[in-house]
Amino acid sequence: MAFDKKLKLWDIKTPKDSLTILTDSVLPGETNALNNLFGGELLARMDRAASISAKRHAEEIVVTSSVNNVSFGKSIPIGTTVTIEAKVSRAFTTSMEVFIDVWIDDDSGKKIKANEAIYTFVAVDKLGKPTKIDKINPETNEEKNRYDAALRRRQLSLVLAGKMKADDATELKALFS
Amino acid sequence: MAFDKKLKLWDIKTPKDSLTILTDSVLPGETNALNNLFGGELLARMDRAASISAKRHAEEIVVTSSVNNVSFGKSIPIGTTVTIEAKVSRAFTTSMEVFIDVWIDDDSGKKIKANEAIYTFVAVDKLGKPTKIDKINPETNEEKNRYDAALRRRQLSLVLAGKMKADDATELKALFS
Amino acid sequence: MAFDKKLKLWDIKTPKDSLTILTDSVLPGETNALNNLFGGELLARMDRAASISAKRHAEEIVVTSSVNNVSFGKSIPIGTTVTIEAKVSRAFTTSMEVFIDVWIDDDSGKKIKANEAIYTFVAVDKLGKPTKIDKINPETNEEKNRYDAALRRRQLSLVLAGKMKADDATELKALFS
Amino acid sequence: MAFDKKLKLWDIKTPKDSLTILTDSVLPGETNALNNLFGGELLARMDRAASISAKRHAEEIVVTSSVNNVSFGKSIPIGTTVTIEAKVSRAFTTSMEVFIDVWIDDDSGKKIKANEAIYTFVAVDKLGKPTKIDKINPETNEEKNRYDAALRRRQLSLVLAGKMKADDATELKALFS
Amino acid sequence: MAFDKKLKLWDIKTPKDSLTILTDSVLPGETNALNNLFGGELLARMDRAASISAKRHAEEIVVTSSVNNVSFGKSIPIGTTVTIEAKVSRAFTTSMEVFIDVWIDDDSGKKIKANEAIYTFVAVDKLGKPTKIDKINPETNEEKNRYDAALRRRQLSLVLAGKMKADDATELKALFS
Amino acid sequence: MAFDKKLKLWDIKTPKDSLTILTDSVLPGETNALNNLFGGELLARMDRAASISAKRHAEEIVVTSSVNNVSFGKSIPIGTTVTIEAKVSRAFTTSMEVFIDVWIDDDSGKKIKANEAIYTFVAVDKLGKPTKIDKINPETNEEKNRYDAALRRRQLSLVLAGKMKADDATELKALFS
Repeated sequence: MAFDKKLKLWDIKTPKDSLTILTDSVLPGETNALNNLFGGELLARMDRAASISAKRHAEEIVVTSSVNNVSFGKSIPIGTTVTIEAKVSRAFTTSMEVFIDVWIDDDSGKKIKANEAIYTFVAVDKLGKPTKIDKINPETNEEKNRYDAALRRRQLSLVLAGKMKADDATELKALFS
Repeated sequence: MAFDKKLKLWDIKTPKDSLTILTDSVLPGETNALNNLFGGELLARMDRAASISAKRHAEEIVVTSSVNNVSFGKSIPIGTTVTIEAKVSRAFTTSMEVFIDVWIDDDSGKKIKANEAIYTFVAVDKLGKPTKIDKINPETNEEKNRYDAALRRRQLSLVLAGKMKADDATELKALFS
Repeated sequence: MAFDKKLKLWDIKTPKDSLTILTDSVLPGETNALNNLFGGELLARMDRAASISAKRHAEEIVVTSSVNNVSFGKSIPIGTTVTIEAKVSRAFTTSMEVFIDVWIDDDSGKKIKANEAIYTFVAVDKLGKPTKIDKINPETNEEKNRYDAALRRRQLSLVLAGKMKADDATELKALFS
Repeated sequence: MAFDKKLKLWDIKTPKDSLTILTDSVLPGETNALNNLFGGELLARMDRAASISAKRHAEEIVVTSSVNNVSFGKSIPIGTTVTIEAKVSRAFTTSMEVFIDVWIDDDSGKKIKANEAIYTFVAVDKLGKPTKIDKINPETNEEKNRYDAALRRRQLSLVLAGKMKADDATELKALFS
Repeated sequence: MAFDKKLKLWDIKTPKDSLTILTDSVLPGETNALNNLFGGELLARMDRAASISAKRHAEEIVVTSSVNNVSFGKSIPIGTTVTIEAKVSRAFTTSMEVFIDVWIDDDSGKKIKANEAIYTFVAVDKLGKPTKIDKINPETNEEKNRYDAALRRRQLSLVLAGKMKADDATELKALFS
Repeated sequence: MAFDKKLKLWDIKTPKDSLTILTDSVLPGETNALNNLFGGELLARMDRAASISAKRHAEEIVVTSSVNNVSFGKSIPIGTTVTIEAKVSRAFTTSMEVFIDVWIDDDSGKKIKANEAIYTFVAVDKLGKPTKIDKINPETNEEKNRYDAALRRRQLSLVLAGKMKADDATELKALFS
């Protein structure tokens, strides 16, 4: 939360405040039989960037609570520069959704989108007990769309886990009617 | 594919043929601020076990294609023995779903369920082109349930990716009507 | 030690109770100039699997006490699936012998024996003091043979270390007379 | 090099074009006896970020050619979020100076400057032969100051290496007269 | 092999020519539940030092062929400075025995012996085929004793592997008669 | 500090007392796009060797305080044997300069100089507070030259950091007049 000097107010945190960028190359020890980055290695890198993003929003210890659907659309060859950008897309009571964009530099140095992923984190105190976290205020159009979609994704995962009746998942139901 | 000596036939592959077990301890370099295994490290380990399982079924190079919803239910402290069991749950034309069970040894040495996860892999040739894979024949009740659920999960991910109309996802629609 | 419901008795632990399987691939960072798995990397993996096996038997902290003769019969190329199976072969007062079998998947997915190794572990309390461990009851023929041979190996290492007179090594003497 | 739409010209590359950000936590395996980040681990991380920055400017393979004076002003405890920002500060014929700023998140999430470092890279072709690189055009005041200082540093290192007479190091001489 | 200027002869290689020293600290990621260096990690480090020693003698690619009895006498706590010294103790036709001494710095900086180990390596060409290696000429008393004992160890391992009759192991038989 | 038997005195420590040798191979996971050792990996290895050398002199915890000019003169290909030799070149009140020589084995096994580097370390107590360290007594000509040059380097870095007036840097001024 930043202090707004004009308004003399503590304003609501934004996704930008939690932006975390992790740029690194694909090293020989991280590649599969086709000399492309291992899926598992990318999952671990994304988790590291996303957990820092969640920690920056929550200002507490955070632990990974779930990984939503991740698609590995593009293979990423050895030596490629990979840029992971993570931002909190929505904060719930004690959990946050973090949206992750993965970019690679192509041969001419242009950034190409390679992947998207969504992780969920819970903020906890030093004993591991969940603690309340601040709300987040999306600013750009993309941030607003991701903020809205986060609720649908949450309902979907509650329904699939048997913790919410399909009937109560109002946001989700619209998709199938 | 194993040769059935009684029937003198090459019989269909089973999930058991692809069973892959990866048992290892949680080392100090793999833990977070609460001294528990990092989510990202577990994601990477599961990917390694699951990709071997997929390779054992497909008898081809495999690449991770997606990670379905993974929930981190139980924190896993440093020093814990972690057993990852991965089995192909269903084979489609060029892709396979792998179901992963994660167990930990408790203080008395008893195995406790810690996590489940579902990864999808694609079989490819040496140029990275998808290749056809054999069908799989579930044997136990659990394997049969996972085999059936795999189709629903596939429809869900196709609908969410905009590659299938919600209306055609017959298996899935039942959930919401 | 498991409770035998039929006999209403705590029955003796068996090698199977300590079975530990560690399946993993050979990664690029673990290979030598011939693109085969480094001997030292295999020694470290076997130690990790064997120490879990020893811990499962002893239900205490365990530390590696010695490595008996290990032969690297087969070179293991990059990308190969390696399965390490470790089982306690015999328990002495405070130490255990763990027998390790190493298998690789060949091109058709068949498991081929690549190596054998024998490690010894000591069970210790939190201050590092050796503690007594339970006996073990071999079940299969292979387990029984390994159980018997473990005593000869122990006498040999005591003789070589100057802690037993060659004359008292009755099991061993037979070999040279 | 970006296309300037107003001037309809390919304009000179800027330091911003080469900006590379690597944010990551300090893990247990990277700390010394005081539980602070090892100097050597920070040197390696800075090299990875700086080499990507140099590659982004040169659009060629780059190799580290030298490390100028690096001071480790602030110790960085385990668990800390570390942000490394690398930008090319000046391009010479075949070599570039990269300026690296290291920031840490303090307890309230504010970014604190922890270190500065300067690395030099050479652009090479696939046979390792040095190749010419584009000029760079500093934009901000800080970038301009660093651009100017880069020449003094280059003269200093040439004098110390005995490749330039102290007398010809005009920029440098001023300091000592 | 070094040229002897006095004798104007190419003289025989000595163990000292193959001396390889690997000094490093015990890092947090390499320790077990008692905060001591993992046996497996030490085995891997010794293999790396010993294989360089073998390569220095053979001037060829070398691969680990076996590990003889290794005893872990002393536990090595986190942060300790560990010095591994490896020297070829005897060369046979295509294989070499390497003797490894492990030292640790105690609190006052004095070097204390922590372990000994013996590894065997085979020299191979680029296709992995064993190649002949030069003889070695022990110089110090310790080197001479280890040179002699190497033959007994070789006979013992041949007998245990069933490749030599106990009766022909003349060096060894003396021990048991 | 060693006891001088002739003089019956505790004599001053020498650079040789702090000599630390770290020999290791270049592994596949440590190489860049040209299959040569990463600059950053070499920086980290040199830091590990140099910090042990500083600790051996100071007999205290040490932390890296700065890295002076390092030139990467020779590229070091994958598989190469790299020998790092670190010795304290001069001790100041609470800091030490460590001089590092890097050698590689060429194809015929001869040692070739690949790099030099100079790191500075500070000795600290368990709370991180700087502590006084013993003087050092250079013995060989090379050690004496490096001892003298260390003072010039220290003055240069104090001047560049704005902590000493150029006018007071008497050793340094000579270079430019």
